[in-house]
Amino acid sequence: MLRVAVLGAGRIGRIHAANAALNRNTKLVAVADPFGDGAKTLAAEWGCEATTDPLATLQRADIDAVVIGTPTDTHVALTLEAVRAGKAVLCEKPIDLDISKVDAAVAEVERLNGRVMVAFNRRFDPSAQAMRKSMDAGEIGELRQVIISSRDPGPPPRDYVKHSGGIFRDMTIHDFDMARWLLGEEPVEISASASRLIDPSLEEFEDFDTVMVNLRTASGRQCHINCCRATSYGYDQRMEVFGADGMLLNENLRASTLRRWSGAYTEAREPLLNFFLERYEAAYRTEFEHFRAAVEGNKAMPVTMHDGRQALRLADAALESALSGRVVTV
Amino acid sequence: MLRVAVLGAGRIGRIHAANAALNRNTKLVAVADPFGDGAKTLAAEWGCEATTDPLATLQRADIDAVVIGTPTDTHVALTLEAVRAGKAVLCEKPIDLDISKVDAAVAEVERLNGRVMVAFNRRFDPSAQAMRKSMDAGEIGELRQVIISSRDPGPPPRDYVKHSGGIFRDMTIHDFDMARWLLGEEPVEISASASRLIDPSLEEFEDFDTVMVNLRTASGRQCHINCCRATSYGYDQRMEVFGADGMLLNENLRASTLRRWSGAYTEAREPLLNFFLERYEAAYRTEFEHFRAAVEGNKAMPVTMHDGRQALRLADAALESALSGRVVTV
Amino acid sequence: MLRVAVLGAGRIGRIHAANAALNRNTKLVAVADPFGDGAKTLAAEWGCEATTDPLATLQRADIDAVVIGTPTDTHVALTLEAVRAGKAVLCEKPIDLDISKVDAAVAEVERLNGRVMVAFNRRFDPSAQAMRKSMDAGEIGELRQVIISSRDPGPPPRDYVKHSGGIFRDMTIHDFDMARWLLGEEPVEISASASRLIDPSLEEFEDFDTVMVNLRTASGRQCHINCCRATSYGYDQRMEVFGADGMLLNENLRASTLRRWSGAYTEAREPLLNFFLERYEAAYRTEFEHFRAAVEGNKAMPVTMHDGRQALRLADAALESALSGRVVTV
Amino acid sequence: MLRVAVLGAGRIGRIHAANAALNRNTKLVAVADPFGDGAKTLAAEWGCEATTDPLATLQRADIDAVVIGTPTDTHVALTLEAVRAGKAVLCEKPIDLDISKVDAAVAEVERLNGRVMVAFNRRFDPSAQAMRKSMDAGEIGELRQVIISSRDPGPPPRDYVKHSGGIFRDMTIHDFDMARWLLGEEPVEISASASRLIDPSLEEFEDFDTVMVNLRTASGRQCHINCCRATSYGYDQRMEVFGADGMLLNENLRASTLRRWSGAYTEAREPLLNFFLERYEAAYRTEFEHFRAAVEGNKAMPVTMHDGRQALRLADAALESALSGRVVTV
Repeated sequence: MLRVAVLGAGRIGRIHAANAALNRNTKLVAVADPFGDGAKTLAAEWGCEATTDPLATLQRADIDAVVIGTPTDTHVALTLEAVRAGKAVLCEKPIDLDISKVDAAVAEVERLNGRVMVAFNRRFDPSAQAMRKSMDAGEIGELRQVIISSRDPGPPPRDYVKHSGGIFRDMTIHDFDMARWLLGEEPVEISASASRLIDPSLEEFEDFDTVMVNLRTASGRQCHINCCRATSYGYDQRMEVFGADGMLLNENLRASTLRRWSGAYTEAREPLLNFFLERYEAAYRTEFEHFRAAVEGNKAMPVTMHDGRQALRLADAALESALSGRVVTV
Repeated sequence: MLRVAVLGAGRIGRIHAANAALNRNTKLVAVADPFGDGAKTLAAEWGCEATTDPLATLQRADIDAVVIGTPTDTHVALTLEAVRAGKAVLCEKPIDLDISKVDAAVAEVERLNGRVMVAFNRRFDPSAQAMRKSMDAGEIGELRQVIISSRDPGPPPRDYVKHSGGIFRDMTIHDFDMARWLLGEEPVEISASASRLIDPSLEEFEDFDTVMVNLRTASGRQCHINCCRATSYGYDQRMEVFGADGMLLNENLRASTLRRWSGAYTEAREPLLNFFLERYEAAYRTEFEHFRAAVEGNKAMPVTMHDGRQALRLADAALESALSGRVVTV
Repeated sequence: MLRVAVLGAGRIGRIHAANAALNRNTKLVAVADPFGDGAKTLAAEWGCEATTDPLATLQRADIDAVVIGTPTDTHVALTLEAVRAGKAVLCEKPIDLDISKVDAAVAEVERLNGRVMVAFNRRFDPSAQAMRKSMDAGEIGELRQVIISSRDPGPPPRDYVKHSGGIFRDMTIHDFDMARWLLGEEPVEISASASRLIDPSLEEFEDFDTVMVNLRTASGRQCHINCCRATSYGYDQRMEVFGADGMLLNENLRASTLRRWSGAYTEAREPLLNFFLERYEAAYRTEFEHFRAAVEGNKAMPVTMHDGRQALRLADAALESALSGRVVTV
Repeated sequence: MLRVAVLGAGRIGRIHAANAALNRNTKLVAVADPFGDGAKTLAAEWGCEATTDPLATLQRADIDAVVIGTPTDTHVALTLEAVRAGKAVLCEKPIDLDISKVDAAVAEVERLNGRVMVAFNRRFDPSAQAMRKSMDAGEIGELRQVIISSRDPGPPPRDYVKHSGGIFRDMTIHDFDMARWLLGEEPVEISASASRLIDPSLEEFEDFDTVMVNLRTASGRQCHINCCRATSYGYDQRMEVFGADGMLLNENLRASTLRRWSGAYTEAREPLLNFFLERYEAAYRTEFEHFRAAVEGNKAMPVTMHDGRQALRLADAALESALSGRVVTV
């Protein structure tokens, strides 16, 4: 029975707390959040301890593993502290917005033989898993192209955007991780095009709301990513992989299978699931279970700090490409 | 080059005339219709002769085959006259609304060694053909159940209904033919339920607008048919066959593949094709070509007068079942 | 916090126990099963008490509600005992295979002002709920036809079949309940056709494996049900409702959205979810929550013993129709 | 009645000849091809004249319009000759592989007030038309992103590739035209990534088989194109447009609506239509009719030489980008 603490009682912390509490092989011991009543409320919900002191929590002997769901700028410090305290860590993405800090953190965790998993939840989505499994079974043969469409239902608050690191580091970073995971090779070349079609005032932050990215690996495999901060039709998450022997597509999820026929249209389907909390509910649950299994089984982490670093590097390179109008070699 | 005359210049006659004119192996020689300017207009369209005398047309030496698209009550007389004149005949369904007249006609055509095809166009729909072909290839194994959904976009004019022979003989007759064709065995038992949910005044004609029929063959195969005279969403034509080794479905057709995502719905598809002239355009064309090939190749007619008779018998039995509230043995 | 005991530790009891244990507003107190180690194993899984004495469990003061998931022939006795002990009851379907026993039980529960819900789980499937909600919102206008396809992935063991009450009472009974629920009116006429296309030796039990049923209500609404004990392609559960203003379809569920393109086919989808435990997982969970909410809120049960009785009556009438070859008035 | 000659009796000439012969408002007068028996065979099929002298054909007084379906390197000369002879021209794409020749031709045709349409057939595909119409009706609001997937079923012969101008000018040129047509604005920036994943020996021709292109317009609209010379699953042609108020997708076409359920997969659909002759059959027919209507109605050509020139410019820029590894400004 893995004993777990969750740091951060925001919306992502609440997901991890629920998964830790409901997982049959883990015990949610404590929830820590220095701000407001978040920890108290969340702890009450699951019958565990609440604290406003994350650092003290890391020192507790009755805790084996921590999930870090605090603000991004605390990820590195808390991760290192947890590693030093001998805890296994599941850290939310991104590790940090600054690649040099990430590099330092990766090196330090390595030196300490720390066990850290970065929370790229989408890899654990059942449809993503089915796609990867089919590829691993050789069903589409040699991979040629990957296409990822990733559009949010609506833009985040202006204040969030300001500190987000920009669309590439905040949003597309998930798609960069999926790209690497599906390509099976590191991208060596990246070209990004970025526009402000929803909110021109994003120029103030050198940020964008609508982007397209192309990646290429050394062997010539290609990947296209398109992202947008808003749609009129919900949270759009699709993937396509095309290989010598076939093609695979993943569709969006809906709350029901209902299809409607009327005078105006036929076979209209239900709205897409609201946003990432709903869309990736199963992914978060499975991610946590993979973390647990890796920790308890003393196996390699399914997503490493290196993975977190590489995704950030691609995000940095994409931003550089978009701002300079040049293809960037990674 | 098969030389063809089309009798009847109504909407069904116009389809056959077009197919005869555009078929590379037939020549449309004449169009005959005693009423109004129909024949003249249609003949002008295709550059052939027009006449108001169908009977005289049947005697012409420069005609090998005739398509009979006149009102139902003239089908038998014209068919017999054509057969006596040595012409091959493609006769619209139903042969007649009176089974005894149909029986007599079948016998007489047989006696004369006449060559008559009954125009059950739906068998020649590309999707129906693909379904039959898959079944013939053994893809679904031993057949168990057939389900046919058949709904018109809107009810016919009251005057048409009055002389139509009722929904079973006028509309469901197509589905009875499809049922026999897909079942591969004769139904021996039929149970029909009939309602007036659109127009209660149909009671005056002992007619109905919404019906469900179940059929069973001697070996136990089952078929369900549902029909309605109107929908809000267009002309609905679907079929399902279920066997020991699989299931096949045929969907409706649309004018384009466009799918729409909006705030209200996702993946909404285009309206269904308007009605039978549009939905079965390819079926009519292929039907005519099969008729031509059978006539010129001196091969068996792909749909026989016997087929026309059996469909009518099922329609009669369905009406009897609906009116009596009993299961009827055929 | 509703305190719950689960009677029966078979596969259906295990589902209810899990739902009672995981529901945030209920507490699973005990699991009772007189046979083998079932109760012990299940109780260990959820950290509750185990007992081999269901009757004693009903008398416990620390239990508010019981879920009855024992063999069918114990349902009535346990339900009545529970009601007498003042417990709210969620009883698995069917209440009993004998309509006279069901009638007596319904009367007795009424006399005792008992609170009993019958577990027709399919009503709580998210897609069924979405369909019903759309109908309630008037989206398809006046209902005309309902079509239910319900096929099991494989036949049950011969010994199960022997005591099952036959396909109509054991399997189609779910569809009869859905029919009533979707029709919104009681069927008054039923016609059933039944075959043995998979296992001819079912004749020994006067049972069948492949059936079609048509139902009609007093106002003329129609419903078709097709059932089969086995398919080659999995557990097939589809529903269609057709009304004056539109049509709604519910599709099958799959474990992922993956679609495959290859040389042999295009857009092939994943297998269907294995069987009812997987397919109706969400339905069972929601059913339990509705039971809890009704009990705690002192509201009407969402599915009543009367519903259980009516479904059985339709099953009896279907069997009578199939055996007699007659339409049966209900 | 527009009198038409078709130059070139290859597979594209045969399509145009059929459309000219079957169109009710045009008359196919002659087919001209200097090589072999092509013209003779094709003319026999449609009952028109055959000649081996295209240039002489252009001088005939009984011809109003010509369709040029000859090899690419003859397009400019024949087009200019036809224009000088006062004929309207429907010229196959590309106008030429050399942009300077194209520029000169455009200028000369303008000077002569010639009437030339370039045959970008895909614009006339029913689904493309439905997409454009929906956009024009404002259904998706301000356009943000366009995604075009375009993959051939198999690679062309090596000898064809050698003289094709390369994948961008030969194959992607269609997609560049669609991109311009859907974007509604000229691309100003292009970035292309190109690989040889099927046939490494294409290096000899500085050609590629698998490419990805991103385009951006001055207002920030974006377009992604992916192309491949071969798939295992047929001719893949899909388009997506995403705007502020919605999204539209166009799917592939199949010969029938049949869907198959079996043990291995569910809802598998039919293979895609073989290649462009089959997939764009309706598009070619409609394209020809638009040409006819524009000529006879003295209206603007629906696709101009300028369109042909712009698509080639994008192809040139894409090649430059792929070879240089730089983003190219157009």
